[in-house]
Order: sequence, then C-alpha cells, then structure tokens
Amino acid sequence: MPPVDAKPKTRRNANWEARREAIVDTSARLFAANGYHATGIVELCEANNLGKGALYHYIGSKEALLAAIHDRVMDEVLQGADRVAEAGGTPSEQLTGLGGELLEVIHHYPDHVWVFLHEYPALTGERASQFRERRRQYERRVEEVLRAGVETGEFRDVDPWLTARAWLGMHNYTYLWLKPDHTLTARDVAQPFADLFMRGLATPGQGAE
Amino acid sequence: MPPVDAKPKTRRNANWEARREAIVDTSARLFAANGYHATGIVELCEANNLGKGALYHYIGSKEALLAAIHDRVMDEVLQGADRVAEAGGTPSEQLTGLGGELLEVIHHYPDHVWVFLHEYPALTGERASQFRERRRQYERRVEEVLRAGVETGEFRDVDPWLTARAWLGMHNYTYLWLKPDHTLTARDVAQPFADLFMRGLATPGQGAE
Repeated sequence: MPPVDAKPKTRRNANWEARREAIVDTSARLFAANGYHATGIVELCEANNLGKGALYHYIGSKEALLAAIHDRVMDEVLQGADRVAEAGGTPSEQLTGLGGELLEVIHHYPDHVWVFLHEYPALTGERASQFRERRRQYERRVEEVLRAGVETGEFRDVDPWLTARAWLGMHNYTYLWLKPDHTLTARDVAQPFADLFMRGLATPGQGAE
Repeated sequence: MPPVDAKPKTRRNANWEARREAIVDTSARLFAANGYHATGIVELCEANNLGKGALYHYIGSKEALLAAIHDRVMDEVLQGADRVAEAGGTPSEQLTGLGGELLEVIHHYPDHVWVFLHEYPALTGERASQFRERRRQYERRVEEVLRAGVETGEFRDVDPWLTARAWLGMHNYTYLWLKPDHTLTARDVAQPFADLFMRGLATPGQGAE
C-alpha cells in the first residue's frame, strides 16, 4: 500500500515527502514505545537524526506529527473501505472485505495503530474534530453494511450500531498481538473472524454451514 | 460489588482501607483524563486533598497507585470468573456468564479500565509480571471454556486461542463507550453480544434459533 499523501508534483517534492513519511514512521515507533507525552522533541530529533529546525521544517509541531500518524492509519483504513465498496457484493461479502482490509492495516502498522488507539485524546482543536469525523465516517461504513444486511434479510434483525461496535472491537483489539513478528498473518485471522461473525449474524435457516 | 482488598481486622484499618480505595478511585479518574506520565504527584495531592507525605502513606509510590488501579480491575474480573465457574453450566452458559461479568466491570469502572488498557506498559518489574500473570490467568479461563465447548461438540471446531481474542476484543473494546452515562447498560449489551458469539460458535444444525 503506497503512502497516501505522497503525490508530489516534482522530484524535489517526492524526496521531501519520502523523508517526511520516514519521520512519521520513526516517530510512531518512539511514541508507541514511550508514549506521546513522555517523548520530547530532543528524542524525536535524535531518532530521526535531524536538528530541531529541520524536524519542524518537515513536521511543523509535535501535535502535527501525532496527527500525521493518525492520518496514516485513517487514510489506509478508508482507502480499504473504498476498495470494498467498489468491489460490491452482498453485505456479508462487504463485511468480510472490510475485516480483511482492517486487519491488514493493523498488521502492517503496529506502531501507528498503537499510537492511534492510545493517544488520540492528545489531539486538540481542529485536528481532534477532523480525526473524530474520519473515524466516525469509517464506523458508519460498517453500520451501513450491517443495516443493509438486515434490510435484505441476509442478517438477523440486529442493532447495526451495537453490532458494529462488536465487530470493531473484535478486529481492532488484535492490535495487541497481530504484529509482523507473530506467527499469524492478517489473512490467517480474517477468515476465522469473518466465519464467526457471519454465522453469528446469519438469519436462522440461512446460516453458513 | 465490594472493594476487593477491604477486609480489615479493626475499625482503624477499615477507615484506612476506605480512604486508600477513595484515593485509588480519584487517581484513576485523573490518570484516565490526563495520562499516567503526564500526571504529577502535585496534581495527585491536590485531587486527593492530601499532602505529599500523607499520599505516600496511603499509596507508597505513583507506580504502586497504578498497580492498585490494575488490581482493582483484575480483582473484579477474576472474582466474576470465579462466580461463573462456581455456577457451572454448559460452555455456552459459562461464556455468556463471563461476558456479563466482564461488561459489568467495564461499565462500573470506566476510569480504571481506561487506565488498565492504556497504561499497563508503565508497570515495571515484579508489578508488570504480576499483572501479566493475572491477565493471562483470565484469558486462559476464556480459552478453557472455548476448548471445553469444542470438546463436547457444543461449539464448532474453532481455535480456542484465536477465538478467545475475538471474544476479548468484542467485550473489552466497549470501554470506549459503555460508561455510566450511556443509555445502554452492561446488561443491554451482554445479551446481544452473547447471541452473536454463541450463534457464531454453534455447531451446524445445533445453533440457537
């Protein structure tokens, strides 16, 4: 998956963007290991091998860096959801697709996801609202697929909001162990999770058997 | 649910324990709102209306306070699991019981659970091992119920470890919204979650309909 905001017009921009992406990744590792508040600009400079001025040139502020980490996760997650919507299919196919995409992001970006799930309250003002709006946008996608499945009768008559929370919890919570060095890959997890959830949602008499 | 370690021998101890419990609760609120690392002893003293010496008299150290918050959650969670084991029943009844108990703890202790899920990496040494061991002990209870259900044929042939992670994620992740001021109670959530999970686990032809 290519980095999302790397659409530079010129070669110089491409280098700048690549360097910025690398800073975001390195800093995500630092924040995940030591916490956002406990990580100072000095540590960020050392880890990125940059002076303070150069660091600010790339990232603007520590909070802008935190926002960039959140954006990396949300960009990937929302692009995955777009791919699923474009592919079409039944509500259960869509939900399976969303799960597969989400687990890939969690598996691929363990540090970013850790920071995302733990440090989002540190975002303030416009950055906090933008993040909440994008997170809500994704949650609504899940709710809409569930609602569609209930309407077509493919799913039982469940509450889409509450069921979306169950689904999100089941998938997001893998961030504690679904890391690149784990024996299981995102794909290993996606199918059993989809099985469990689709059987749980199946209208009696029409369940996957 | 009574506080767990409040089994004082004398009236003086009862007062001391009650005061200590209150300090743990107030500090959990502070850590949940501002983060463990960002909260200083000065803020803890102010919030608890105590001088530094008095605070240390009750809690020993800031990390001991963090451990006490973790213990509060783990005590409640493990006591709930004991009640479920004592009540007996089929694996699906046991798993339903575990879910109900867990959601009650999450609903009743939103600040403690927030701190627990976000700040556990700040525990060090013996405190970290003890916490990991107790957490692991609870996870094993869930895995064992799942294994028992697979063995009796009540559940499909799922991987108990991975399925326990799905179950834990679904339930634990409610900490983001299942708070005392939410319109839904733990009980409102427990039944739909149990329905979803038990149907998902049901052996084909024997599912709940």
